Order: sequence, then structure tokens, then C-alpha cells
Amino acid sequence: MKIDEGRVVEEIRRVKPRLVLLSCPEGYLRQVEDLASRLEREFGVETMVSADLCYGVCDTADLEALKLGADLAFHIGHRSGFTRIGERTVMVDVFDDADFSKVIEKAVALLKPYRRLGLCTISQHLHSLDSAKGLLESAGFEVYVGKGHERLLDGQVMGCRFTTSFSIRGEVDALVFLGQSRFHAVGVALSSGKSTFMLDPYSETVEDMGVQAEQWGKRTVLQIYKAVDAKRFGVIVGLRDGQMLSAQAVHLKKRFQKHGREARLITLREVTEERLAPFRDLDAFIQTACPRISIDGSVFSRPVLSTPQAEALFGI
Amino acid sequence: MKIDEGRVVEEIRRVKPRLVLLSCPEGYLRQVEDLASRLEREFGVETMVSADLCYGVCDTADLEALKLGADLAFHIGHRSGFTRIGERTVMVDVFDDADFSKVIEKAVALLKPYRRLGLCTISQHLHSLDSAKGLLESAGFEVYVGKGHERLLDGQVMGCRFTTSFSIRGEVDALVFLGQSRFHAVGVALSSGKSTFMLDPYSETVEDMGVQAEQWGKRTVLQIYKAVDAKRFGVIVGLRDGQMLSAQAVHLKKRFQKHGREARLITLREVTEERLAPFRDLDAFIQTACPRISIDGSVFSRPVLSTPQAEALFGI
Repeated sequence: MKIDEGRVVEEIRRVKPRLVLLSCPEGYLRQVEDLASRLEREFGVETMVSADLCYGVCDTADLEALKLGADLAFHIGHRSGFTRIGERTVMVDVFDDADFSKVIEKAVALLKPYRRLGLCTISQHLHSLDSAKGLLESAGFEVYVGKGHERLLDGQVMGCRFTTSFSIRGEVDALVFLGQSRFHAVGVALSSGKSTFMLDPYSETVEDMGVQAEQWGKRTVLQIYKAVDAKRFGVIVGLRDGQMLSAQAVHLKKRFQKHGREARLITLREVTEERLAPFRDLDAFIQTACPRISIDGSVFSRPVLSTPQAEALFGI
Repeated sequence: MKIDEGRVVEEIRRVKPRLVLLSCPEGYLRQVEDLASRLEREFGVETMVSADLCYGVCDTADLEALKLGADLAFHIGHRSGFTRIGERTVMVDVFDDADFSKVIEKAVALLKPYRRLGLCTISQHLHSLDSAKGLLESAGFEVYVGKGHERLLDGQVMGCRFTTSFSIRGEVDALVFLGQSRFHAVGVALSSGKSTFMLDPYSETVEDMGVQAEQWGKRTVLQIYKAVDAKRFGVIVGLRDGQMLSAQAVHLKKRFQKHGREARLITLREVTEERLAPFRDLDAFIQTACPRISIDGSVFSRPVLSTPQAEALFGI
């Protein structure tokens, strides 16, 4: 993993901040701690590292930086179409230097039944897209990379955004996901409805996501049906910067009321079973914060549906 | 428990908000949910109830309210010298209607060795101070109530503020704490250095806090000594509104560096073992967020000292 330190240094030279806040996913914390120490030594700047969970582009600490008196904040490791967020947050890339050539070599035989492939990945492997495309083309495939859209760059997928793979579903026979994230690979499969293969450069394995996508899809539907008979809904607004869909939550609440159900609005920074426990009067929850919560969230004792799942519920 | 609903209604009539955010300690959530429903029905106002942990006067949601588009926020259950915080937060009292007369009757015999008593309590029992004072005076004691100071009202104590009991320690032979909070009663004992009795109106028991105060005091000293040999310190800035002591943390960090130790600044919303785990290079932590974290925090595997404990550390 390589942090784009050039970008960090460039901004520090330009802004000449007294205090800088750095945030990143937990996996990068040690590297970011080292970087922070070096910034203090080399530029005489005070640094603070955020120890809170950091979920993605939607989870910057721009307002916290303001409140802490930081002139600059670096959000490290979630590359996207945004290079800046808010008044003082600069997005800094992390490049994973994993080599995909061996796993692509292995994949070629498995991918033979398909001629036209769609290619996608998550932020830290985006710089590997071109060479992967070249290798697959050399092996005789036609390769398509979905155009960037809103915050997504070309070929990029996020936990809540699969537009780049969805948009090319008509042109391809199968989708190829570069990386080790089963969650994202299943998301590609579910959103595109296409055969999807995950090419993991670390274990050098190729995984057909079909079975797992089917299981996750069924679990999602099951959650929706579990919520069908609920009388009282809690509609949750997430409090992380990019999750704060206040108006959408109010709208959902009113739709529930029109359907003759009770609905209450709840705000929450992190949606966990423990924080929902005191709301004993509610039968089910809709969370507008992040679709991933409802997919990873088989830990909940009551249904906790995402917005698309709520839409499906209205359709029943 | 009675929420001061008159205050809520008065503000709603005055501000005529479209959206109101309500936050409260977990124990009041159901009552606050009921109140929110009634506000929606009776005033046609949209309400959101915060499900996040709410720690006290230092933990208002003023900025969240702004980001959510709420015109008004009610912080329920932490009475203090502040009646408003920030741009839109109104502090709303909760009155505990517990009756202290029986437990005071029981206490009289135990308190006989003392002539002059100091009286204090937490916010929800403040309205009982006068009648308790009267009862104790009728039983022949001289009773003193410490004057309010900064955010404290007369006779009030908080987890981080015991000025009202500390200030009268010279005039009294013992302190009497009204309520069921062992944490606060021990705090009164430790900060005043006086014999302290907790009068619990629910169990109708009188507890001499001496032994427990001694145990907690020893544990605190032990934590400080465990940190004496630490080479690398993490200095934590809390992210809750009233805990954000950025400058104090920077100052502490510099003092550690002057003492030849390494020190790093970390920001954190909630200080838990889990969130500190990734910082494996650090030997001990100082948290500037809330003294209670370090007192209740025997769950930490490394020392996590409060600011006063850090001061003691510099003295060693």
C-alpha cells in the first residue's frame, strides 16, 4: 500500500497549516501514524489522527476539523471523483501495488465461455485497470470499462454505487472484479445480474460469485418479507457527513404513514443492535445511511432494511 | 421522571420550527419518543430522536441539528447553569419525583456523629434540595449547600465538576449526596476528602462511601504508576461538543515531548479499548475528553489517564 504522499506535501506547502487532521480506514492507521510523525518533523505542523471508524467517501471529518481548529484535513484511502470535500478536506489516494498478472493468467481458462468482459475494481486498484485490460485483451477478450459517474471514476465501484458495472451490462457477457472484497464483488453481481468473477491478487484465486450473490439476494428478500407485517417503523438518518439524508428519511416516513403504518425518525452515528435495543416499541427499521449496513447486518434481531429494500417493501 | 414539557412547548410556540431534534440519556428514550409523537400530532412539527449515547451537558447535538436542517434541538435531562447551548439547542430539565423523606429519616441516626452537613445532588434531584435541607435541619443539623459555579447550579455535582461540594469542605463535618449514583457520590468523597453518605431514595438505603472512595482512589494512583515507564503516549481529543479540548491536548503533548517522551495526538468520538487497539505502538494514553472514562475504564489493557491523572504523572 502506498499513500500518495506527494499530494499531502503539495497541500501542506500550499496551505501552510498549523494543525492537520488525518483520517483513514483502520487498515492504514499505522502508515498514517508514520506519515503524521514525519509531517511534524519535516514541516513543523501539528497533526491529529482520527481513531474513529472511517467508512468511505461519505465519511469525511470536515466539520470535526473545523471544530478542532485544523486548517486542513486529509481523508486517506478512498479515491473518488471528488478531490476535495467541504472547506478543508483533501482526498488522498492509496495505491495497492498488488500485481494482477498471475491471477489474470489463471482466470483466462475460466473466462473462456465469455467473449466480452466488463472490468471494474475499488479505489486502491484503479491504477491497475489499464494493464489488466491489456492482459485480458491479449488473451483474446473484448474488454469494457464503465464510464465514471458522479463520484465514481471510470471502472470504479463502491459499496453503494455500481453504476459503472450496471451501465455496461448490455455490452458484456460477464463481469470481472479486481480485488479481494467479496462484498463489492457480490454487489457487482447483484446490481448487474451478470456472471461475475472476483480476481484476488493476494491468494491468486478466481471466484465465481454466482452462488454467494444468490444467497445474499435471498437473504435480502427474506429481510423484506420479515418487515411486511411490521406496524411501527423506525426510519434512521445516519449522522456521517455523506450519509445524512434527512429529507429522504422524512419522505420515507410519510410514505409509511400513508400506508397506515406508524413511523418515527431516529438519528444515529453508527447503526448497531445495541443502539436500536432501547426502541422496543418499533417492529422494523429502515436505515438511509448505507446499503452495506443492511447487507452485512445479519446481526440485527429485527429487520433493518436499506432504502432500496424499503422501496421493494412498498411494492409488496 | 417528569420532562419539563412546558419548556418544550413554549419554545416550539416561539420558534415555530419545521424540524426538531431531541436527545437524551438512554434511560429517558421511551418518554422522549412519546413526547416526540405528541409534538408531531399537536404542533405538526417533524421530530427526530437521537439514538446515540448522550453523556451530559458536554454532549449536545447542536451541530448535528444544523446539518440535519433542524431549527431547534432539545437536550433533555441534563439540567445545568446553561439554558441554551449553541445556536439552536435548548436545555430541558427532567425532574425525578423520588421522595427523600424516608431515607433522610433513616439517615439521621447514622449522621449523628456529624453536626454540620454539606448537601449536594445531580440535576434531576435538584428540586428536592430545599425540602431535604429542611428535614435535616429539623433533625438538628446545620446544613450547607455549595454555591453554583460556571455550569453548576447551587448544590449540583457533575461527573467532572464537584466545585459545589469542594467549596464547602471547610465548613462541614460530612457530605450528603442525594441520589442513586455511586459514581457521583464517590466523586464527592474523593474531591472533598470528607466522609460522604449517599442517600438512595429508591432502595431507601444510606451508604458510607468511604471504603469505595479509598478503593477508587488507589486504583487511580495505580493507573498513574503503570504509566510512569511509558515511552510513547497517545493524547486523545474527544469529539463530543463540550469535550473538544484541542488546545489542552496539544499542550499536554508538548509537555510529554519536553519530558523526553514521544507523544501523538488522536481524535476519537468514544474512547473504547477496541478503537485504541490499532495503536499498538503506544504504551499509554491520556484522554482529555471526560474524567469518568478513566475512572469507569478498568476495561482498558493499557493505562488511559484523565487530565488530572496526567498532571499527577508529571509530578512523579
